[in-house]
Amino acid sequence: MVKMIMHGCNGAMGQVITKLASEDNDAEIVAGIDCADNRENPYPVFTSCDACDVDADVIVDFSVAQAVDGVLAYALKRKMPLVLCTTGLSDKQLEDVKAASSQIPVLRSANMSLGVNTVFKLAAAAAKILGEAGYDIEIVEKHHNKKMDAPSGTALAIADAINEAMDHRYTYKLDRSAERAKREANEIGIQAVRGGTIVGEHEVFYCGQDEVIEIKHTAYSKAIFGKGAIQAARFLKDQKPGMYQMSDVIG
Amino acid sequence: MVKMIMHGCNGAMGQVITKLASEDNDAEIVAGIDCADNRENPYPVFTSCDACDVDADVIVDFSVAQAVDGVLAYALKRKMPLVLCTTGLSDKQLEDVKAASSQIPVLRSANMSLGVNTVFKLAAAAAKILGEAGYDIEIVEKHHNKKMDAPSGTALAIADAINEAMDHRYTYKLDRSAERAKREANEIGIQAVRGGTIVGEHEVFYCGQDEVIEIKHTAYSKAIFGKGAIQAARFLKDQKPGMYQMSDVIG
Amino acid sequence: MVKMIMHGCNGAMGQVITKLASEDNDAEIVAGIDCADNRENPYPVFTSCDACDVDADVIVDFSVAQAVDGVLAYALKRKMPLVLCTTGLSDKQLEDVKAASSQIPVLRSANMSLGVNTVFKLAAAAAKILGEAGYDIEIVEKHHNKKMDAPSGTALAIADAINEAMDHRYTYKLDRSAERAKREANEIGIQAVRGGTIVGEHEVFYCGQDEVIEIKHTAYSKAIFGKGAIQAARFLKDQKPGMYQMSDVIG
Amino acid sequence: MVKMIMHGCNGAMGQVITKLASEDNDAEIVAGIDCADNRENPYPVFTSCDACDVDADVIVDFSVAQAVDGVLAYALKRKMPLVLCTTGLSDKQLEDVKAASSQIPVLRSANMSLGVNTVFKLAAAAAKILGEAGYDIEIVEKHHNKKMDAPSGTALAIADAINEAMDHRYTYKLDRSAERAKREANEIGIQAVRGGTIVGEHEVFYCGQDEVIEIKHTAYSKAIFGKGAIQAARFLKDQKPGMYQMSDVIG
Repeated sequence: MVKMIMHGCNGAMGQVITKLASEDNDAEIVAGIDCADNRENPYPVFTSCDACDVDADVIVDFSVAQAVDGVLAYALKRKMPLVLCTTGLSDKQLEDVKAASSQIPVLRSANMSLGVNTVFKLAAAAAKILGEAGYDIEIVEKHHNKKMDAPSGTALAIADAINEAMDHRYTYKLDRSAERAKREANEIGIQAVRGGTIVGEHEVFYCGQDEVIEIKHTAYSKAIFGKGAIQAARFLKDQKPGMYQMSDVIG
Repeated sequence: MVKMIMHGCNGAMGQVITKLASEDNDAEIVAGIDCADNRENPYPVFTSCDACDVDADVIVDFSVAQAVDGVLAYALKRKMPLVLCTTGLSDKQLEDVKAASSQIPVLRSANMSLGVNTVFKLAAAAAKILGEAGYDIEIVEKHHNKKMDAPSGTALAIADAINEAMDHRYTYKLDRSAERAKREANEIGIQAVRGGTIVGEHEVFYCGQDEVIEIKHTAYSKAIFGKGAIQAARFLKDQKPGMYQMSDVIG
Repeated sequence: MVKMIMHGCNGAMGQVITKLASEDNDAEIVAGIDCADNRENPYPVFTSCDACDVDADVIVDFSVAQAVDGVLAYALKRKMPLVLCTTGLSDKQLEDVKAASSQIPVLRSANMSLGVNTVFKLAAAAAKILGEAGYDIEIVEKHHNKKMDAPSGTALAIADAINEAMDHRYTYKLDRSAERAKREANEIGIQAVRGGTIVGEHEVFYCGQDEVIEIKHTAYSKAIFGKGAIQAARFLKDQKPGMYQMSDVIG
Repeated sequence: MVKMIMHGCNGAMGQVITKLASEDNDAEIVAGIDCADNRENPYPVFTSCDACDVDADVIVDFSVAQAVDGVLAYALKRKMPLVLCTTGLSDKQLEDVKAASSQIPVLRSANMSLGVNTVFKLAAAAAKILGEAGYDIEIVEKHHNKKMDAPSGTALAIADAINEAMDHRYTYKLDRSAERAKREANEIGIQAVRGGTIVGEHEVFYCGQDEVIEIKHTAYSKAIFGKGAIQAARFLKDQKPGMYQMSDVIG
């Protein structure tokens, strides 16, 4: 059982985690912090960190970059492990997070989903066998029609996980239509599909002579990120100070 | 039962069709024509059209563009239906083919496979329902790592089939990585994957609110083009003079 | 613009349709009917049909079988078109529905989703070409781990749509592990996968020599059934008395 | 570079390996052994083991169970590493193979493909993370319409690889249509699709709350088994006596 303070409890992900925690026998939100107090929650909500003196094992943050300085100072003051899910931090903030990790355990990850992090791990393991044997590696990702960037951060993170396992031998090929040329062996092609309300789909292909191996992740809702945050909290509760990632959680 | 003359019988596709015809109870190659006489075939082979006086229902051509003038003249002289599978014809040749079709039935198609031509048809039918209802349409194709062009001619032909059914409302988006922008409603995204020895795979996605409909074709060998040529021959045997396509064969 | 009365407005699907209608410029719920009055809705709610005298174009029913007699009598009395989405009706009720359709338009369908109904249509069209040409047809469906029945009603409805288009030549093969035998040509194999919270996925395969054509539907939420109900209401508003299905809506 | 004797060189797989070796700069067939001498090969062919005195690094066997006693005695006499790809051995033969492995290196595997063996490994690794976290595991396999058994040996081998990694907690569920019941947590569902000429496709699904992770293998020809045999020969050349599997080759 892990007792959590939820920082950003009234945002979209905060509400997802509230619902997940209420169905989880091994996790409980004991207090929320949010500048907006516009939701009904099954725990006391404070409009600032300073006001919250509830006892807890871990503080989980899913807020906005501007609010991260405050939650970091609060976690340090209370010597409380911090699961940091907010993205878009500045370089200065990243340095502060690293400095804080000498005193408290901090977990920060590009993607909080257990499934996506498992795909990072499997994709790297497959590359060590099949990439080494000369199989071509390609990635296709699919997202909703409102997404501005392509390819997705998660697709690039999969490619990076492969590249780190393979001595950075690959370059990324984002467009094959611009030139008439054969594929190079040291490329990873990354293609983006956009349509409807697709939450997120990532496929990695290893293509050899007369066979293809594929690793695929399909997300059906954002609940997978909330579930990962709870798993991270449960893991972080018993760790020593330091920087952690979801890959440490999945062992 | 259709009796065929195979023009280009000793090329790769000619040999594929030879094998398929030998296993087909409703089709027989009664003679071959090829400038190279370097293969053993279960029928007489002539090194020029002029030398071949064997009686047949249809002549099937899978040769090279330079040889098409000869086979066209031969088909006209003998008033024999012509299945024309050779690609890369010049504008002059295309005119000659059209002119010939006033005297003999001629079938010419971008892709000879029954399955691919069925996909053309299904993709257009789905677009009329789902495209009309605002679903986003996207195409992904996969081919081997030796292929020079991207996207594939067949992927473009699928997009064209959809566009023709929808008053040409769509433009094609071949690269999403170059700019940071939301998807436009009147786009068809077409992405190319290259790897290993993949013979050819084409997927069309119709993405709406909380649902995706997909039509997919997977080729396991080039035999599918040969099989289509035999089906075309069987169909063309009983037709009146005119231009035909595989879409006429599949009804 | 269609004005709807929502019968069963406080059930799960009633609430889904309430949300969808509030975002739809061409549809409006003007009144709800539900024996439970436990939700806030942006329209007046009546606890019985008799109490509801609001003017509307169509009545949409997503309730329980026991409540269908009441809504049918109400629609007849008010000469109002009826979209009937409740399943599990008795034979007697089905007869009553049919009788009612001589006086009012009634739409009833096995599955209300536009996408699934498009798949019914595409699957039958593909069978007429590929089934006729000897391609083997197989279906795989996937659902969440709480689903009791297998295969799903929708998988059977796809098989039925194919079978009706093909003079009922196929039998359904639900288990291949029980005997050691080759596949029969007149079978449609239907396999069920169960796991996690999968909302619903249906794949139809047409397998020929060296090629496979696939038609696939993926549902991401139950909203697709609600969206279909609204489309059906918009369609039914202007119809003459008679029985209709979603296949009539998609044209 | 590995020099191989090919036992069963004139069978289907022997011919596949002959073609692959002729295109491989690091492998050469220096002699063949086959009771039938009905093919042209680019190496001398002997009609019995005893007659073959050509020097080589490894002997590769792709023959029939009855011929395995002979090749085993031959490998022992010449102290030559043995890649044993023939299946259907008797218990007595399996004992003899094991006994022989005290004197020579012997590699024997349920499936010779590098890709399939990578899938065994990835499937077990994924199960340790996702199975442990409560994700449901399901397998679907697809093969041609002539295959007699279902599910495939490879599908069962994937399930076994998962089960061995997970303390044998799973039972296999081959038919979900026979009863009306929810899925049990300790099941692995295994479903078989049969159609056309599909060479072999295997998918493993890990289904959690709102996400699915998939590992898939697609075979396009039997060349993948031949390629694996050559990789095994290259590996086995430098090993000490003992029993080996393809999992040792992929490291």
